[in-house]
Amino acid sequence: MKLWDKGFSIDKKIEQFTVGNDREIDLHIAKYDVQASLAHAIMLESIGIITSEELQKLKSGLGVIAETIENRTFVIEDSFEDVHSKIEFELTKTLGEVGKKIHTARSRNDQVLVALQLYYKESLQIINDKTKTFFDTLLSLAETHKSKLLPGYTHLQVAMPSSFGLWFSAYAELLIDDVYVLNAVSKIVDQNPLGSAAGYGSSFPIDRNITTEELGFSTLKFNVVAAQLSRGKCERVIANALGGLCNTMSRFAMDICLYMSQNFGFISFPDKLTTGSSIMPHKKNPDVFELIRGKCNKIQALHSEMLLITNNLPSGYHRDFQLLKENIINAFEDVKDILDIFNYAIQQIIVKDIDLNDEKHQYLFTVDSINNLVVEGMSFREAYQKIGNEVQAGTYKPDLGKEHSHMGSIHNLGLEYIRKKFPE
Amino acid sequence: MKLWDKGFSIDKKIEQFTVGNDREIDLHIAKYDVQASLAHAIMLESIGIITSEELQKLKSGLGVIAETIENRTFVIEDSFEDVHSKIEFELTKTLGEVGKKIHTARSRNDQVLVALQLYYKESLQIINDKTKTFFDTLLSLAETHKSKLLPGYTHLQVAMPSSFGLWFSAYAELLIDDVYVLNAVSKIVDQNPLGSAAGYGSSFPIDRNITTEELGFSTLKFNVVAAQLSRGKCERVIANALGGLCNTMSRFAMDICLYMSQNFGFISFPDKLTTGSSIMPHKKNPDVFELIRGKCNKIQALHSEMLLITNNLPSGYHRDFQLLKENIINAFEDVKDILDIFNYAIQQIIVKDIDLNDEKHQYLFTVDSINNLVVEGMSFREAYQKIGNEVQAGTYKPDLGKEHSHMGSIHNLGLEYIRKKFPE
Amino acid sequence: MKLWDKGFSIDKKIEQFTVGNDREIDLHIAKYDVQASLAHAIMLESIGIITSEELQKLKSGLGVIAETIENRTFVIEDSFEDVHSKIEFELTKTLGEVGKKIHTARSRNDQVLVALQLYYKESLQIINDKTKTFFDTLLSLAETHKSKLLPGYTHLQVAMPSSFGLWFSAYAELLIDDVYVLNAVSKIVDQNPLGSAAGYGSSFPIDRNITTEELGFSTLKFNVVAAQLSRGKCERVIANALGGLCNTMSRFAMDICLYMSQNFGFISFPDKLTTGSSIMPHKKNPDVFELIRGKCNKIQALHSEMLLITNNLPSGYHRDFQLLKENIINAFEDVKDILDIFNYAIQQIIVKDIDLNDEKHQYLFTVDSINNLVVEGMSFREAYQKIGNEVQAGTYKPDLGKEHSHMGSIHNLGLEYIRKKFPE
Amino acid sequence: MKLWDKGFSIDKKIEQFTVGNDREIDLHIAKYDVQASLAHAIMLESIGIITSEELQKLKSGLGVIAETIENRTFVIEDSFEDVHSKIEFELTKTLGEVGKKIHTARSRNDQVLVALQLYYKESLQIINDKTKTFFDTLLSLAETHKSKLLPGYTHLQVAMPSSFGLWFSAYAELLIDDVYVLNAVSKIVDQNPLGSAAGYGSSFPIDRNITTEELGFSTLKFNVVAAQLSRGKCERVIANALGGLCNTMSRFAMDICLYMSQNFGFISFPDKLTTGSSIMPHKKNPDVFELIRGKCNKIQALHSEMLLITNNLPSGYHRDFQLLKENIINAFEDVKDILDIFNYAIQQIIVKDIDLNDEKHQYLFTVDSINNLVVEGMSFREAYQKIGNEVQAGTYKPDLGKEHSHMGSIHNLGLEYIRKKFPE
Repeated sequence: MKLWDKGFSIDKKIEQFTVGNDREIDLHIAKYDVQASLAHAIMLESIGIITSEELQKLKSGLGVIAETIENRTFVIEDSFEDVHSKIEFELTKTLGEVGKKIHTARSRNDQVLVALQLYYKESLQIINDKTKTFFDTLLSLAETHKSKLLPGYTHLQVAMPSSFGLWFSAYAELLIDDVYVLNAVSKIVDQNPLGSAAGYGSSFPIDRNITTEELGFSTLKFNVVAAQLSRGKCERVIANALGGLCNTMSRFAMDICLYMSQNFGFISFPDKLTTGSSIMPHKKNPDVFELIRGKCNKIQALHSEMLLITNNLPSGYHRDFQLLKENIINAFEDVKDILDIFNYAIQQIIVKDIDLNDEKHQYLFTVDSINNLVVEGMSFREAYQKIGNEVQAGTYKPDLGKEHSHMGSIHNLGLEYIRKKFPE
Repeated sequence: MKLWDKGFSIDKKIEQFTVGNDREIDLHIAKYDVQASLAHAIMLESIGIITSEELQKLKSGLGVIAETIENRTFVIEDSFEDVHSKIEFELTKTLGEVGKKIHTARSRNDQVLVALQLYYKESLQIINDKTKTFFDTLLSLAETHKSKLLPGYTHLQVAMPSSFGLWFSAYAELLIDDVYVLNAVSKIVDQNPLGSAAGYGSSFPIDRNITTEELGFSTLKFNVVAAQLSRGKCERVIANALGGLCNTMSRFAMDICLYMSQNFGFISFPDKLTTGSSIMPHKKNPDVFELIRGKCNKIQALHSEMLLITNNLPSGYHRDFQLLKENIINAFEDVKDILDIFNYAIQQIIVKDIDLNDEKHQYLFTVDSINNLVVEGMSFREAYQKIGNEVQAGTYKPDLGKEHSHMGSIHNLGLEYIRKKFPE
Repeated sequence: MKLWDKGFSIDKKIEQFTVGNDREIDLHIAKYDVQASLAHAIMLESIGIITSEELQKLKSGLGVIAETIENRTFVIEDSFEDVHSKIEFELTKTLGEVGKKIHTARSRNDQVLVALQLYYKESLQIINDKTKTFFDTLLSLAETHKSKLLPGYTHLQVAMPSSFGLWFSAYAELLIDDVYVLNAVSKIVDQNPLGSAAGYGSSFPIDRNITTEELGFSTLKFNVVAAQLSRGKCERVIANALGGLCNTMSRFAMDICLYMSQNFGFISFPDKLTTGSSIMPHKKNPDVFELIRGKCNKIQALHSEMLLITNNLPSGYHRDFQLLKENIINAFEDVKDILDIFNYAIQQIIVKDIDLNDEKHQYLFTVDSINNLVVEGMSFREAYQKIGNEVQAGTYKPDLGKEHSHMGSIHNLGLEYIRKKFPE
Repeated sequence: MKLWDKGFSIDKKIEQFTVGNDREIDLHIAKYDVQASLAHAIMLESIGIITSEELQKLKSGLGVIAETIENRTFVIEDSFEDVHSKIEFELTKTLGEVGKKIHTARSRNDQVLVALQLYYKESLQIINDKTKTFFDTLLSLAETHKSKLLPGYTHLQVAMPSSFGLWFSAYAELLIDDVYVLNAVSKIVDQNPLGSAAGYGSSFPIDRNITTEELGFSTLKFNVVAAQLSRGKCERVIANALGGLCNTMSRFAMDICLYMSQNFGFISFPDKLTTGSSIMPHKKNPDVFELIRGKCNKIQALHSEMLLITNNLPSGYHRDFQLLKENIINAFEDVKDILDIFNYAIQQIIVKDIDLNDEKHQYLFTVDSINNLVVEGMSFREAYQKIGNEVQAGTYKPDLGKEHSHMGSIHNLGLEYIRKKFPE
């Protein structure tokens, strides 16, 4: 059953091809289609298109459907093209004539738009919350391990002393930047598109403020053509925002995998968090962090997909947009999982004691040695030459234990300042 | 059941996260895992690791599994991590001790590699065949409609006369370029990786020529580290090759959608190939071509995904590689479908008669007019100025019906030459 | 001359390869390196590393350099690796010993970071301003042409009535979403990284609040490792934000090119804004809009470049990051130009009168016809069937002139609401 | 001076915007424009459009220009839009009337196409040759260091023994796959587009076989619309082919950077190949390899740019295509440099002796230990359990020195087979 059935039958092959796996992915937005249909019905009643009695019937019909969604008994059978056809069919089956009125003054285009945006909005909130949890975990790990030193690298070469406190809280502070972008995207999806119909509005005297208020949107996407053009554009900014968060996590996971290597040996995890090999019995592999990294990289690629599907298309709806839905919803669900798993796994990290006196680390302290000379009055460039000559000649002796006191450095992490920066 | 079970239990949350949807996607490679296991067993017997009796048992055990795959009763239960664990488990359950020997001298890494490459190799062949069919269809359409003129555009502005013959056969000829790349990729996947084990080979005196021959590979990926490094690299070149083919189809689909617009009105399709609207009863939308375009664009984005998952990782296997599998297999299956649908749908095209005397087309023939002056002896630049002045003054009269005789032009399409260029 | 010269000579081939075209691109950040060096010197004096007399010398030396940059006589000779070496060299040449002290307690890493971020911050502000100008132009065009109707398309098929007012203001409203993201990115770059040195801070008791205030940053990137990790991350979010704005402009330019085609013929531009052809004298091509589209698409691709350069690299500086600089700076400069040109060109648009009674537009009003039946009491689905049958039978008569009164529709554009939404 | 000057002056701002930096980048294709112009003139004479005397004049005029290009005195002044305008202008200035005839029966579109394709074709050949040199270097290094063992890693965890012989020759063998794709692309660009004019051919009776032969193309792009459509498509496949080669080099460079880290310490390079730090006097950083990696990653991103510029555009020339030129030519020049530098630098590698008896490497040999048990008759799965238990209990003793004899393994690298596989 299609919303637009016109009597002639569409070719079977074509139908399979066009429907794709919408039925499966649409389960994620079923709840929001019900919410939006309800708001639409309330508005239709307020402008006299349906009676208050009809509204009551629709409310109760939608309530029944909402329950089946809630308790997971809601199913989109193969005879339906998508969740929207299914819900309208159910309403008509149960309520008769009234069901046929729900689609008045809307189109499937704005119906899909509004359901997706409600899903996006709620999912962004969930991701924001989970990111905050992860942020707190990292700051807490930084506090716990703040006195444990770690070699700092540049160019993958031993450079200067760092610490686990710095390492954990660095990724925490980066998450704040990701949240800035997530919040901008939340504003973008928080604009009611309902009422744009097929992208050119409606000749009915609909009241878009009512649906805006009913659905809890902060404002409207006023212009109906803009509402339509935001399809694809929303998905692009979401892909970027999720991708940004994933970028932080992916790079953190890379560090973890490297530091777990026997050649670094800075950290480990309990056996139950590691994975074996089909032929090497000694293996305790960091698969979970590799999969975090890989999945995060995959999500970072999503931007290209969203872009290529929509780019260079003239304004107005195109069926291509249907294809935006699947992987953006998958990405949202994946990011939720990744945040949970990462937050869970990182808490079990075992931080090792690292011998900074080991020969391979001996040059970690050359900059401190230079600085000592500078404090004694030598110019920086001359001190640099002097220590450099000692290194070349093999006579350099490290100068351990120098305090780094400035804001954001090893001995003054500024965790409370970082904590305060996290946006409300 | 995992191939590497070592006694301590992996965390449940972690397990769900790491397995992902491998069980579903692995059904596509089950058949090839059986083929490769059989070849491996034959080789093991030849070097004396298993007896010929044991080989017979393995042959019969694998035969039974092959049948269940063939008749689609093969299932990978939730207790198995992937298809490889499942098949080894089945062999051990049925054959006892012998089943435990099949994994001798191989690792899951090369087991996955070889199964995937066999799948890739066969799928590339199928896609090559379907592309040839599509190519033939387009040449045949070009022949049928060769005398029907079409305005040619540059900058989306009316430019010079073209024809449906040119249009159809242009896309046919472009497919040849796509096949050149597909064939290069076929060569790349046609190198046996089996025997590379975990990426560093084996201390068993295995004979990789035997498995190469049994599996029909043209050659070996000799170096075992190279075999491992080709994971990700194969997927990248496949994504490019499929993306190239999709690029041709996507641009063709764009033309079709544009030419179907009422503002062009050059072509149409039977009602059964078009799709309606939920609110506009007059709509006969080209959804099938928009979805071809969209799906092709999505596949063009796959290259970024493959790249981001593997890029900058040091050599050696990483679990991230598992994530390459899903979307590359989906892309193969999608491209097969797209070629079928496109080939099916394009044959039903209705080519309209276009009035090249229509006012908006009047300047299509200015170049022919110039050329006539040149043939009469004027230099090209002067003839250009003269006709240009007539256009400016509004006195230009088109000069219809000029024959374009050179190779590859309107009246000399060279279809037989294009046909011959298609690689064997 | 290199900041790190150690006595042995780097290979010539290698040097050319490593320096690349930094000297040219660095001219864009010279001004900011001077600003940051000045702030750094002020801070060094405040903590007693240099005397107030030394500070005065540095101030005057930097002032001289700033002037040469301002009046474009500043040159980075081939003997310098980059702008930073050049400026330090100049100070030392002019001021002697004092010049050698400026690099105390900083590293080239944070020196580059802070100069780039100052450039990014100012450029984002410029782009924000130019976007506001473009926004105002579009709203003004919408007001001017609000009564001119335009066919609205879905699937590139004639769908429902639209208007030039809707079209212009749709792109204006979309720009607001782009500004949300630009503003988030402005917050990200508005965090002082100076003091992070090589990514692990300094053993000097530097006061990062002083440089933060001197440079006008809103806050610090507190954690020094985070400051280093933001290299690449800043560029990624900038590429996304510029890409988002470019996405809006690119799609608008596509509409323009399509509407200029003779087959649409909705708009035109004065001859001086169009471009000719080397062989077709009648051509007035929309090259400027095609180049806007193309350049915008190129900038949309920048995200992939920024990502691929940094992805999967462990934390800590890598020389690869140097390569981020060139194209992100080029993109900033290009976007500034594109906004200028687009704003300039669009004001010269010639909007044509479109005959909505033309046969190809006859179905534009079917939805209005349905709605009239609904208002008379028929259910939507039945009215849809009735009008659909008339269309099929060829008896449909359009019902012109229906008022669309709701917020954001043809006759109620809500321009003042859109104007108010633009972020301060 | 523009080829299409029509009397009204194009806006200055617009002109700057549209010309971009074509004049600079066009120097790379000047030589090929001369070649193609010559071939075109020869053809024009053969069909009687110009006389043999006129041909002689054009030959000599083009010869003079070719010389200035050869000795680098050729300049494209600001008054010219591009190299093509410049060359036509020069011919007309020197030869008078005859110069005005050179553009007969061609358009700037096919003129640009053919010049670019000639440049691409020659550049691909150069890259092929340099890749072969690099391949030979790697095989030679593999031969030299074949007896030096190296720990092999999976998941960045110590896994099984590898060797420098395996490592060097692995990257050599991967280059073969890259060459397969390069060769496919060479076939794609080796098809003469000249004669396609503005994308719709010419009404002159041109003989495209003559220019095909004169220019040394293997075949024609027969269909003129296909010739035009190959713009963008060629650049996309080139970006992929160069990207593939860069992918191999980028991953190799990553290994090098990691192995140079003090924590691995497997290799080093002479001081003159390393780079210092502005604050750390001990630093010998692998900048050259990091820049190889970074530049290779940048080139891998080019595919997205080429794709986004052309994707979803209807057939026929669009000005956007001009933007394809700059970065594809830059990429060609960069890849040539990268191959030179990599080949030069890698030969100076210092391979260290690695102590495989070191504690962190002790589990490298567990698989060999298992295999020994299997050879003695235990099933693989049982041997795996036994050794696994020893590892868990801390009683495992490695079993060094096992020979790996099969094709492509440590002690049987098969270098001669790899060498033979390199395509002619």
